[in-house]
Amino acid sequence: MGFKVGLLGLGTVGAGVAAIFQDRDGRHPLLQALELHRVGLRSPAKPRPIHIPAECITTDLESIVTDPDINVVVEVMGGIEPARSLILQAIAHGKHVVTANKAVISRHGDEIFTAANQAGVYVMIEAAVAGGIPVIQPLKQSMGANRITSVMGILNGTTNYILTQMQQSGRSFDDILADAQQLGYAEADPTADVDGLDAGDKIAILASLAFGGRIKLDDVHREGIRAVSASDIAYADKLGFVIKLLAIAKRPNAASPDTGIPDRLQVRVHATLVPKAHPLASVNDVYNAILLEGEPLGQVMFFGPGAGAGPTASAVVSDIINVAALLKSGLVAAKPDTQSIHPLLACSHHSYSQVEPISELITRFYVRFLTKDHPGVIGKLGTCFGNHGVSLESLVQTGIQDGLAEIVVVTHAVREGAFHTALEEIHTLEAVDSIASLLRVL
Amino acid sequence: MGFKVGLLGLGTVGAGVAAIFQDRDGRHPLLQALELHRVGLRSPAKPRPIHIPAECITTDLESIVTDPDINVVVEVMGGIEPARSLILQAIAHGKHVVTANKAVISRHGDEIFTAANQAGVYVMIEAAVAGGIPVIQPLKQSMGANRITSVMGILNGTTNYILTQMQQSGRSFDDILADAQQLGYAEADPTADVDGLDAGDKIAILASLAFGGRIKLDDVHREGIRAVSASDIAYADKLGFVIKLLAIAKRPNAASPDTGIPDRLQVRVHATLVPKAHPLASVNDVYNAILLEGEPLGQVMFFGPGAGAGPTASAVVSDIINVAALLKSGLVAAKPDTQSIHPLLACSHHSYSQVEPISELITRFYVRFLTKDHPGVIGKLGTCFGNHGVSLESLVQTGIQDGLAEIVVVTHAVREGAFHTALEEIHTLEAVDSIASLLRVL
Repeated sequence: MGFKVGLLGLGTVGAGVAAIFQDRDGRHPLLQALELHRVGLRSPAKPRPIHIPAECITTDLESIVTDPDINVVVEVMGGIEPARSLILQAIAHGKHVVTANKAVISRHGDEIFTAANQAGVYVMIEAAVAGGIPVIQPLKQSMGANRITSVMGILNGTTNYILTQMQQSGRSFDDILADAQQLGYAEADPTADVDGLDAGDKIAILASLAFGGRIKLDDVHREGIRAVSASDIAYADKLGFVIKLLAIAKRPNAASPDTGIPDRLQVRVHATLVPKAHPLASVNDVYNAILLEGEPLGQVMFFGPGAGAGPTASAVVSDIINVAALLKSGLVAAKPDTQSIHPLLACSHHSYSQVEPISELITRFYVRFLTKDHPGVIGKLGTCFGNHGVSLESLVQTGIQDGLAEIVVVTHAVREGAFHTALEEIHTLEAVDSIASLLRVL
Repeated sequence: MGFKVGLLGLGTVGAGVAAIFQDRDGRHPLLQALELHRVGLRSPAKPRPIHIPAECITTDLESIVTDPDINVVVEVMGGIEPARSLILQAIAHGKHVVTANKAVISRHGDEIFTAANQAGVYVMIEAAVAGGIPVIQPLKQSMGANRITSVMGILNGTTNYILTQMQQSGRSFDDILADAQQLGYAEADPTADVDGLDAGDKIAILASLAFGGRIKLDDVHREGIRAVSASDIAYADKLGFVIKLLAIAKRPNAASPDTGIPDRLQVRVHATLVPKAHPLASVNDVYNAILLEGEPLGQVMFFGPGAGAGPTASAVVSDIINVAALLKSGLVAAKPDTQSIHPLLACSHHSYSQVEPISELITRFYVRFLTKDHPGVIGKLGTCFGNHGVSLESLVQTGIQDGLAEIVVVTHAVREGAFHTALEEIHTLEAVDSIASLLRVL
């Protein structure tokens, strides 16, 4: 009994997937029941790292998603369109779908999973988050006993590489970004990575799985790492922190019908000062990691390669094998119906989670001020913070440069809205030249 | 539609499982379809941390595994008998089984999984290895695309706690063990932990899943940490290592029909010098971690709490939810038959893996010699090693104590058998007083 796979896209990941199909010995025996039947691509002239027989290749992508012989459609083209439409067409034709496309899933997961549930097919997305690290499957199948309170991770390899290099070399963001672009670790247009959009897509997907409700991407607060300077990294280091771009989704502990606190999630991406002893602090270079916290489990962390042809193809093909397992055991009805679909592997969310605005966040802050070298500046800062209920954990005045003094402040936990009100007032102080940087502290 | 669970054992883990059933809100909705129907225990008079209605409790354990109302039997009694017989009886009565019992699975997995396959039921074992860390499920369902080359981990929390404390305090094994016993981190009889037997059970299970063949526990080379001294830890530190009890299963890369090298696994547990930059080096205290390596994935690591009521109950109940998902979706035939069983969740191994004898292992060694303070001792050692093809990576002569010099040697990779032949000859040298310790280096 064989199952037929149609592959949409033959770029880096697609070629990695095809390579596994061309070399199956020693992998899971179920792979032998699968055949890479047809490959769809848009630029047939483009050189590819892998040879696919010409008769398998087509530029008519629609012919793959409608092919009655194909059981599983694998979408690794990336981008929103035509990926979204092809996925929906594949579902409408009763195909199971495996995709690595975090952008489509985070924006259009609602219509895609709704359509899949109606058609009685699976949409598998392990490769969409954290490349080769199994995290979607564990969230679906290994955490059910828990009340999950937090999902937090380093989900973007490019920015983690840049921050690690800044940390190790003391060089500036712009310098390291240029290097990373030359090495192929960063795109020519690095926006999606360095502005936190890619990590935002991924944390929206993880939050949805962890907390059982869909997430509107617009509700995800996203900041990147452009504002992180070499001096911030150096001060953070002295204070016992490293700076990481963290993607964080939390259900604040207090939320419950008993306390009257509404059940709202925090979902956010921003550069963060992470204490050096924290498990995520030592995740360096292009590696990713995800820290899950739940009751009664405590903390577990998953670490590994978050991108690249091999790791991502590993996740894609493992998803295909999972679909094949369901097909082989007859666990998918010949005529799709929603009664016999596996409740842990299908998406069971039917509503959106409430996400709290960032102004409601309670967090510690790190601020670097440039001030005029006047006596009493520290007193004025302290008074102003105090007036707004912001209490300080540490305050360091460092050297004078170009006639300006640098003051680095770490606050105790404070409501973000109140903190910004304090900062606005500080900004008006004559002695304060500028707020050079502002970062959150884990 | 409800499913009934029978629980065997109400110790630490059993009470943790029952506590989750008594407090289901906010956990996976499938838990609502499950009922903790009966609880079997052996000592009804023993005080328990949880209240179970008297009518649910029985001391007649057999009545649970034969109860026609019960769908899933959860075995958290520990020990070999009666756990093994009860599991087999439950299977014979068509019950699915969830167990945390590494000792039974590593010794009797063969008959248990064979019986389960014949009966068309599942035996789920997530809690048997690494407590709350999802590793069984990822090995079954997230790694299928890969040729796994290595599974390596810190699988015993007690020994990791002891080694971490020795490292941090400089104190001796015996001192720290006594403390750990007082704190409840080590048993009164610590043999299973400190002699590597517990980790041996666990790596046998992981090797079986990773490499697709059953493992005879007698083939697993097991050493513990009793021989690790405070000075070894101090020397290792200077050389850039920490000492960890590693459980290692590898399929040497060279094995393939092409090379003619037989397909034999290494499966072993021993104290190991781990380079400080290695991901496992920073796993401290009672935490566990597992590092999986495969092609094309590369390395992924799972980290978390390896024991304790909460984490272990998290794994047990998540397994129960997985069984409930199969039951609910009708993915388990009403009349059990092996055709409709899920091929990734059932055990599909039908033969034993070949395990290579430890003498064939190629590894680096760390040796600490006590020698008489003679000139030329180092030359004699070097000559002797050279005669047996052992080449040295480093050699340090440290101070003189009680008239004896201490010489610490780290070798390049060498076949263990050849190395021992060299050591035997060195042992006969008049200048050599003793071989104070001998550890492998990762």
